[in-house]
Amino acid sequence: MEKRYIGIDLGGTNIKAGVVTETGSIVSKASVATGSGPHQVVERMIHAAQQAVAEGHLQMRDIESVGIASPGPLSSEQGIVIRSANLPGWHNVPVRDMISQALNRPAFLENDAKSAAYGEFTAGAGADEKITNFILITLGTGVGGGIIYHGRLIRGVSDSAAEIGHMIVNPDGEVCGCGQRGCLELYASASRTGKYAQHLLAIAPSRSSSLRALLEAGVSIGSREVAEHAKMGDELADEVWDRACRYLALACVNAARWLDPQMLALAGGMAGAGDFLLERVKKHFATLNWKMTETKMEIVLATLGNDAGMIGAAALARDAHQQR
Amino acid sequence: MEKRYIGIDLGGTNIKAGVVTETGSIVSKASVATGSGPHQVVERMIHAAQQAVAEGHLQMRDIESVGIASPGPLSSEQGIVIRSANLPGWHNVPVRDMISQALNRPAFLENDAKSAAYGEFTAGAGADEKITNFILITLGTGVGGGIIYHGRLIRGVSDSAAEIGHMIVNPDGEVCGCGQRGCLELYASASRTGKYAQHLLAIAPSRSSSLRALLEAGVSIGSREVAEHAKMGDELADEVWDRACRYLALACVNAARWLDPQMLALAGGMAGAGDFLLERVKKHFATLNWKMTETKMEIVLATLGNDAGMIGAAALARDAHQQR
Repeated sequence: MEKRYIGIDLGGTNIKAGVVTETGSIVSKASVATGSGPHQVVERMIHAAQQAVAEGHLQMRDIESVGIASPGPLSSEQGIVIRSANLPGWHNVPVRDMISQALNRPAFLENDAKSAAYGEFTAGAGADEKITNFILITLGTGVGGGIIYHGRLIRGVSDSAAEIGHMIVNPDGEVCGCGQRGCLELYASASRTGKYAQHLLAIAPSRSSSLRALLEAGVSIGSREVAEHAKMGDELADEVWDRACRYLALACVNAARWLDPQMLALAGGMAGAGDFLLERVKKHFATLNWKMTETKMEIVLATLGNDAGMIGAAALARDAHQQR
Repeated sequence: MEKRYIGIDLGGTNIKAGVVTETGSIVSKASVATGSGPHQVVERMIHAAQQAVAEGHLQMRDIESVGIASPGPLSSEQGIVIRSANLPGWHNVPVRDMISQALNRPAFLENDAKSAAYGEFTAGAGADEKITNFILITLGTGVGGGIIYHGRLIRGVSDSAAEIGHMIVNPDGEVCGCGQRGCLELYASASRTGKYAQHLLAIAPSRSSSLRALLEAGVSIGSREVAEHAKMGDELADEVWDRACRYLALACVNAARWLDPQMLALAGGMAGAGDFLLERVKKHFATLNWKMTETKMEIVLATLGNDAGMIGAAALARDAHQQR
């Protein structure tokens, strides 16, 4: 009988919880609205975990331990969410111990993007025993990531490693919410890709684009619309998509230079475009990358979709003894 | 009695060899001219090692094993130097086994900058048991580096991790010898810093600078001259120095984002300027770095000077059993 773990993924809109086997298969899952304020949100996380267990016709005693994926900054060692842009009112919330006590199971807390990276590494795109060094880049509202080296998650000394969205890629670029200039997140997130299209439409009112009709109809332009219209041959949409993919490729080059992993996977909203993202990123990578030696890093799409954080959190709970 | 190891540092001009104790103290050392061609160079490496042992009034049987620091690309696993810009005519030279057989001792091969990083980590700037995650950036003719995570050297899957000089810091910058555009090495190496000063003097013949007299006297302007004249208040020299330090600070920010280490040390020719380098880099770092959380990474000067590679190679030989 395989051992079972709970993975909880705390998002700004929904909380997802799942019972996951030791080999990364989902037994059952549940989803609830996030709510607001630490007290309510933690209550709902507990409820989602209990619901997932019930869905699987299991008891809490069938569960070994619980992994929690949360936005940060947080301290995985202390089990505390320090604060979060997506969770107003949170300040040093001891989420791990609150959940551990309520469920009477050991619990572990990790950053959401790092959890997703560990999920893809153990049960998704990187789930191959030949792959020991792996990087995930998540392209959503922001850009996040995780690094696995020699099979272990790289946390850094203050849980701040792999802040891939805050790599400076353009030293004279615009100011990011983090206080830096020219962060990758400003050029390659799903939300910024949509905004850049809107910007180009606004500054050149006479430029024709199939996206303009959407904008005039009051549709919000996101990365999905940009990708769809670029695929259909719209020049403005293609310019926007191409810029995002070029910056992503630049991040991939720097990833190879820093860490030289076997694989780098792309996930999140932008990755919904599938091969239209992957092939464009690879094309720019081939141009931007050095010619000194062959780069062995394979660039791929992530495979677990929205379950990556939940599966990764469960896998981190499973491997907690070896993780620090 | 402490165990003893040999560290050999293969440079483009000289080969240095030293007998180093298990705690990183140098017992004795020797230096010979590098020579040319794999056969002669390896002969001289062997000779340097024997000379260092003789200098220490020791026998080869007093030595546990031998570490070799070499320019790359190389394969540490196979013990082969694939080729090197500074070693013409080298192609897949099995340096490790040649030296191991000649000295009748186990030998280990590692990249020179990674060896220097391990030297500084174990016996130099990072030699503090509280420091487990450490980055070295070497600022010489090129820019190199090494990363230590959880006490272990990060090699990557093709010995190409920590190629810090080939981080792209300016995507629209000039072309680097490696085939990329805008590599850090083009803006922050000792040699490029001198060349940039010469460039500024050449494009503005009427601009006054105390460096101009040097140039007219046929003196080659390097990073040392730039630092000296900047210290004395020369505006052009200061502009050049400041640009190099700003790009270095940018690399430091990205180092913190990727790996979140406790310490980052600066070494090599540029670091000869001491606090004049360090303080300027720290100043730009404070401006460029994010304001999200406190960055715990301390930026310091390396302390082992030219012995870092030799000491690091010896330490890698000591720790070879735990290194892969």
